Amino acid sequence: MKSTSTIDLNMVNAYIPGRANVGPATAAMIERRDALLGPAYRLMYEHPLHIVRGEGAWLIDADGRRHLDVYNNVASLGHCHPAITEAICTQVRKLATNTRYLHDTILELAERLLATVPGTELAHLMLTCSGSEANDLAYRIAQTRTGGVGMIVTDTAYHGFTDAVSKFSPSLGENVDLGAHVRVVPAPRQYHAEGADVADTFTRDVEAAIADLKRHGIQPAALIVDTMFTSDGILPGPVGLLKGAVEAIKRAGGLFIADEVQPGFGRTGEHMWGFQRHGVQPDIVTMGKPMGNGQPVAGLLATADVLGRFGENSRYFNTFAGNTVSCAAALAVIDTIERDQLIQHAAGVGKVLRDGIAALASRHEAIGDVRGVGMFVGVELVSDRALRTPDRALTTRVVNHMRDQGILLSACAKGHNVLKVRPPLVLTAEEAQLVISALDDALSAAQRT
Amino acid sequence: MKSTSTIDLNMVNAYIPGRANVGPATAAMIERRDALLGPAYRLMYEHPLHIVRGEGAWLIDADGRRHLDVYNNVASLGHCHPAITEAICTQVRKLATNTRYLHDTILELAERLLATVPGTELAHLMLTCSGSEANDLAYRIAQTRTGGVGMIVTDTAYHGFTDAVSKFSPSLGENVDLGAHVRVVPAPRQYHAEGADVADTFTRDVEAAIADLKRHGIQPAALIVDTMFTSDGILPGPVGLLKGAVEAIKRAGGLFIADEVQPGFGRTGEHMWGFQRHGVQPDIVTMGKPMGNGQPVAGLLATADVLGRFGENSRYFNTFAGNTVSCAAALAVIDTIERDQLIQHAAGVGKVLRDGIAALASRHEAIGDVRGVGMFVGVELVSDRALRTPDRALTTRVVNHMRDQGILLSACAKGHNVLKVRPPLVLTAEEAQLVISALDDALSAAQRT
Repeated sequence: MKSTSTIDLNMVNAYIPGRANVGPATAAMIERRDALLGPAYRLMYEHPLHIVRGEGAWLIDADGRRHLDVYNNVASLGHCHPAITEAICTQVRKLATNTRYLHDTILELAERLLATVPGTELAHLMLTCSGSEANDLAYRIAQTRTGGVGMIVTDTAYHGFTDAVSKFSPSLGENVDLGAHVRVVPAPRQYHAEGADVADTFTRDVEAAIADLKRHGIQPAALIVDTMFTSDGILPGPVGLLKGAVEAIKRAGGLFIADEVQPGFGRTGEHMWGFQRHGVQPDIVTMGKPMGNGQPVAGLLATADVLGRFGENSRYFNTFAGNTVSCAAALAVIDTIERDQLIQHAAGVGKVLRDGIAALASRHEAIGDVRGVGMFVGVELVSDRALRTPDRALTTRVVNHMRDQGILLSACAKGHNVLKVRPPLVLTAEEAQLVISALDDALSAAQRT
Repeated sequence: MKSTSTIDLNMVNAYIPGRANVGPATAAMIERRDALLGPAYRLMYEHPLHIVRGEGAWLIDADGRRHLDVYNNVASLGHCHPAITEAICTQVRKLATNTRYLHDTILELAERLLATVPGTELAHLMLTCSGSEANDLAYRIAQTRTGGVGMIVTDTAYHGFTDAVSKFSPSLGENVDLGAHVRVVPAPRQYHAEGADVADTFTRDVEAAIADLKRHGIQPAALIVDTMFTSDGILPGPVGLLKGAVEAIKRAGGLFIADEVQPGFGRTGEHMWGFQRHGVQPDIVTMGKPMGNGQPVAGLLATADVLGRFGENSRYFNTFAGNTVSCAAALAVIDTIERDQLIQHAAGVGKVLRDGIAALASRHEAIGDVRGVGMFVGVELVSDRALRTPDRALTTRVVNHMRDQGILLSACAKGHNVLKVRPPLVLTAEEAQLVISALDDALSAAQRT
């Protein structure tokens, strides 16, 4: 059975059985859930939430209590956004079928997505059901194109849970083995770089990983990077950060895969995609989570060059991926982002949020760094500002205190000490203020305990 | 770019560019699609269909023409079944979120699914987005439990498209490499067995594959079987067929994975699951396609013994899998199957269909074998009844003639010569007669050309 220590090691902000008194109703539901779903599932928070309804940035629990959700980037336009739910309901009553027939919606979706990547050679859309499937397919394509299997990833990266992708997702924890063909490089942590040029360091680290793969007779297939380094601690980094590393992998005959599952669809407040911040040319761009605002849909864009050999060798059919309903949802998401100018909105309210949290640093010594772009904010908590010592215990207390105050967020990074603030793009400035003032309270309360 | 010969080799019933005049509107849409989706996607039929609407067993194309769909087993309750679409629309407007919070629907779904497997040790449900993800997760679990990586599959099996699963899906074609840890055994083809006991042969073949894996120092992780051998040609086989093979893999320390993605949810007209026909005890049962009648939802049931180690080592989180909307759809599917007694209905109308097709054999020498259970019928077409010579060319003509008459089906099997008739469970006896009489015409017409 699952041991507390294992859970503790593997996952930030997991519910740990027995640590807190969750009350009889929740305890009974957790017991029923453990019996039915088995030992691999996890809940969040010391007091897990039983959610029954969502609207806008809010989740409502079984007791009718409202929680401001600044964490789930699936419902990125807000929970149950009417434009998306109506697109789903209209289409699901008309037709839900697959890509072995012609239909318009998938073609329109492809045109709209390809229009978001001007100045690249990305030419084709392939659809999957999940971001994990998208990264798995990207890996298959990379192997076919390069003849290699080697993968380079950052040290706390998460790219998915399939057998192949879990082997290059170090954040799954020490008990999930990395592949012998996988090399891990340090994420570009400017806050811990003591003035060094993180872009240079990152380039050199990727070059060293390439050399090490080759020394072992392994041809590199790809460098894959979450362009916001989400699990690594939300690291937008200096503009252009990825340039040297991307050039290095391409020189070595490998591909650059931009994993946009978390940063994509306007979250950065700068562009539709995170890689666009760094002016690099991905061979493959993977996407998922917010793509259907909750409807399961994910996929990838790839260049014609990269897909040529794969298309010769393999047909691709994914029963549910590209179904008319998921495509209709994804189209409605793009429409809404554009019509409501949500990228600009994310930039504006994101700045309010970031500035407000940064201002707390004068009162709270624990705030070591506040960083981010758009609706993606990382707050690094430390026990010693001079030494930048990660304070995981404090971070856990803050997350749970926030939850108890009705603000939902979580944490990330190697040290499990970075608050991950990832609100829906539609968050208002007033709602941002609620987050800031709750964080002020939580930091005070958590320091006292 | 894709060459005709490659496509021809890899996939039954693929649209082959240039072979037929599809008319200007369809040609333009195909060209647009190839440009947008790239070279790996395939269409079905010589004249691909542009579908815009579905209702019951019918698909309606852009010209308003109605096609009787006896092929898509996703919309197994009929296209746009109101009980399912209303469950989706109600839930999607209320809440669509994930398994890191408590919610009731997933627990109720687990209880209902576990109630369908009495007399087994299957104890837990885990959810995925696709059947491929379910088989990929089953493989990860099998590796963790057994310490082995070896896989045994039948020679024309299809289990999915992820990097790991494609390595044990021989039906993807010769250009998709099988893994060095994979052994392929002949499917139990009674029609070609010349009186031999196929169960005995299958057991011996699996035993030989186990021995060969061990001789290479590879510990078997699992035998995985589509319990209806769908891609192998629809082979229900004698009751108990799988018993010896399952005992053999368990003796060798490997697991038995019943892949119910195609046979599951009542299609056999005998039980909810195909494995129940053979009285065997799976360690893992995977499911998908018809599970949400179109909504992306899939998963697996596993024993507590099998999941124990996996749960210790790995947390499991799949963003979209187990979301409230997909669970609501799956619950509505189970409700509908039970309320409308669709397993019994599938048995009754399936028999009408099978008997009617079998009766055609007296007039059509090409019909070598008619087999199946419930709403799963295989019709093996041969050029010589005595020699049982597969007639792939005739099969392709029959499929396309049927399509032109407004009946949608396809083909399968190693020789690409088995008509795959897989209607929705709600097919009426009158609709079954339409299939039978269209097949009568198609066989006459295809013999003449």
